[in-house]
Amino acid sequence: MSNVKVTIIGAGSVVFSLGLVKDLCLTKGLAGSLVSFMDINEERLDIIYKLGTRYAEDLGADLRFEKTLDRAESLQDADFVINTATVTHEEHFMKRRRELVDKFGYFYGRTGMPEYHNLQLMLDVALDMEDICPDAWILQAGNPVFAGTTLMTRETSIKVCGLCHGHYGYHRIASTLGLDPERVTWQAPGLNHNIWLTDFYLDGEDMYPLLDDWVANKAEAYWDELQRQGKEIPTQMSPAAIHQYKMFGLMPIGDTPRSGGWWYHTDLETRMRWYGGPIGGGDTPEGRDRILKEKEEKLAQMKEAAYDPKVRPIDLFGDKQTREQHVPIIDALVNDNEGQFQVNVSNNGALAGLPDDVAVEVPALVNRKGIQPLCVGSLPPKVMLERIYPVWLDMERTLEALLSGDKSMLLWSVLEYHQTHNYDQAVEVLEALMHMEPNEPMAYVEDINEHYDWPENW
Amino acid sequence: MSNVKVTIIGAGSVVFSLGLVKDLCLTKGLAGSLVSFMDINEERLDIIYKLGTRYAEDLGADLRFEKTLDRAESLQDADFVINTATVTHEEHFMKRRRELVDKFGYFYGRTGMPEYHNLQLMLDVALDMEDICPDAWILQAGNPVFAGTTLMTRETSIKVCGLCHGHYGYHRIASTLGLDPERVTWQAPGLNHNIWLTDFYLDGEDMYPLLDDWVANKAEAYWDELQRQGKEIPTQMSPAAIHQYKMFGLMPIGDTPRSGGWWYHTDLETRMRWYGGPIGGGDTPEGRDRILKEKEEKLAQMKEAAYDPKVRPIDLFGDKQTREQHVPIIDALVNDNEGQFQVNVSNNGALAGLPDDVAVEVPALVNRKGIQPLCVGSLPPKVMLERIYPVWLDMERTLEALLSGDKSMLLWSVLEYHQTHNYDQAVEVLEALMHMEPNEPMAYVEDINEHYDWPENW
Repeated sequence: MSNVKVTIIGAGSVVFSLGLVKDLCLTKGLAGSLVSFMDINEERLDIIYKLGTRYAEDLGADLRFEKTLDRAESLQDADFVINTATVTHEEHFMKRRRELVDKFGYFYGRTGMPEYHNLQLMLDVALDMEDICPDAWILQAGNPVFAGTTLMTRETSIKVCGLCHGHYGYHRIASTLGLDPERVTWQAPGLNHNIWLTDFYLDGEDMYPLLDDWVANKAEAYWDELQRQGKEIPTQMSPAAIHQYKMFGLMPIGDTPRSGGWWYHTDLETRMRWYGGPIGGGDTPEGRDRILKEKEEKLAQMKEAAYDPKVRPIDLFGDKQTREQHVPIIDALVNDNEGQFQVNVSNNGALAGLPDDVAVEVPALVNRKGIQPLCVGSLPPKVMLERIYPVWLDMERTLEALLSGDKSMLLWSVLEYHQTHNYDQAVEVLEALMHMEPNEPMAYVEDINEHYDWPENW
Repeated sequence: MSNVKVTIIGAGSVVFSLGLVKDLCLTKGLAGSLVSFMDINEERLDIIYKLGTRYAEDLGADLRFEKTLDRAESLQDADFVINTATVTHEEHFMKRRRELVDKFGYFYGRTGMPEYHNLQLMLDVALDMEDICPDAWILQAGNPVFAGTTLMTRETSIKVCGLCHGHYGYHRIASTLGLDPERVTWQAPGLNHNIWLTDFYLDGEDMYPLLDDWVANKAEAYWDELQRQGKEIPTQMSPAAIHQYKMFGLMPIGDTPRSGGWWYHTDLETRMRWYGGPIGGGDTPEGRDRILKEKEEKLAQMKEAAYDPKVRPIDLFGDKQTREQHVPIIDALVNDNEGQFQVNVSNNGALAGLPDDVAVEVPALVNRKGIQPLCVGSLPPKVMLERIYPVWLDMERTLEALLSGDKSMLLWSVLEYHQTHNYDQAVEVLEALMHMEPNEPMAYVEDINEHYDWPENW
């Protein structure tokens, strides 16, 4: 019987938190644990608290719950802190920002502006943990995982592990090729949202030749058929993903083919060319509006399941464990229930060619001893030079800007962004972004205009 | 009395070669040396041979000369090889290329296409040297010095030193501030064409505050006055250079402010904003046409001095040593006539934060022992992250593309270039560049379309 306290920061991300609750309920070794929900939004906090409590009843699980609006209180005695909180990665804010920067000539809200709020929040949480629960692990779920994991590892003494589920993209490749994903062995190291399928076997046999055959002989028909049926093309098997495979020599996995080069993303027409119709995949204004709608429907459903006595969570959300790694990792660390996971941790030589203090995404063995990354060796030079190093430098500039508060570094990043076409445009969109009406969570981190300033001689 | 053989590859670069001859004539310790002129252009080779011989007569110097169209013959018994040869950095070719890519929407010939010919030529020369004169130094004068010095150092066992004169830009800063350049001490490390004034003293006193005062209170009037007089603004003190100082925190030196960010260079109007009128500085079609004209006038003058018995070189070109470093470095290495020079050599820790096998531009003590770079420490994070690392990665991609022959890497670099606005434009300009009518020197390196090919699954 465990006596673990799991704190969920930003627990109002109801879908995600509910998954955690379910996984905790279904993990025998974590019976008796205390789950502490923390959020700044009281309504959402209450929904997840009610929902979690009722879900545990449904599943007959021995879990205790608490809820609080106070971060420090929630961190008290925590063994694991799962941080899913976000300031800027919130659908309504992102929509507002998309519409703002569209006026300056930027498609889909992308301006090259380095993230500030989410990273400052992560750092604030980790610094609080140093004071309040210095031995706890932080499992970072909110984005940007790459920059945030690196930042917290460098700037605090907290044990940090960033988690994502993008690596399951290999399932889609396998199933499209007609392979049973369960029989596939694979490896896809890199940086978060930037991972590359170095190994792809079925029963020990290399499946890359099968993929090559599919690309050469079947991909066009697959895309045409989906389009004919009015269905969307999965990003993992989209023309953009296959083009990236040809450009870089390895298959990009999960969230990786969502980026891959500015030239896939300049406008809706271009997105449709590379990601299919009718709305160019999820990463377009149209695609994002749909995600927003789905999330709102989901929230309404959650609310119903939380408060309507006739609706039981188990009927809506089932009794199967999710594929998220957070709870199994906690189980491995607490109960020595060993497993292999895809984690984001400080490199220390796991992925050759990157500094030790950069967070890499690699497979790791996790057990009572801790999280031990596998030394996966190196990625091909082309992948390193064209996809890993440039993103690494972007991350370093983002952190240096944040830690120095130098506004000219924000300007430089906007200038370098490919959708920027002249100097004045960059200056104008930067000022517009910095002077946007704040959203609610922004009250909880330092104001961006307090944080950043021009150099003295500007 | 020295018995040194100095080979000049690409000796038909008459102005440059004549400077070397003059410096050799004026260096007592190198009396008795043999100068071997090599070029593929017989007419120009003959001009420099005649001119050099007559110049030595004028200066009463004891030098011997030979000329040859055969590289191997010229390298035989060489102690120093000065490589100033170029395939693509030739005014008529560059003009033709500018006009070609202009049709695809690229201003001033800049497409992001990685250099191939000049680097392959440098590598060919260095590989020849390994066979023919393995103990000789190569002093690399032709561009790109940064990539070429790195390439030759990595791929051959030859002693390599890249040289440039851009660092004398500090003279212009000093004189504009009313300081005697001779009394200034300074340091400006970095990469070639990418060096930064870390130290700037007059009689031991920091002159950066004086520069700051000039920027704040005098720069505008200085630019206005030059423009009023119809004079050009020196690039070293241009609005672009000062803007870069504000952006990056250190003054960019020499050729450094000529680049500095795509946003200074998109068209003539933008160039005029940052580099002044009436033709936006040298790096515009108009500016380059003027350079071409000046070079042709200079060549005609050289020809006259070579063949007209009534014209003596000394009357046209004087008897003062140039500021080029090649001959003083040879003198230091041969005769232990020690000096401090600005060199490009393999890093090995001289500039912190870059790999050992990357060519850095740093001050070095040169004497009989060799070329010993000073360990200059580090540049500020902003300079590293925004100016040094991105250019380092460009160089690495250029070399990887050259060594692998992977055409998709050329495409990637063109795509990433900021003037590229869509995918098809990049593909089209790449093909156009690869199928340009070759110029004469291209016959001497492997054909670009033989060298590069798409990946197998393209």
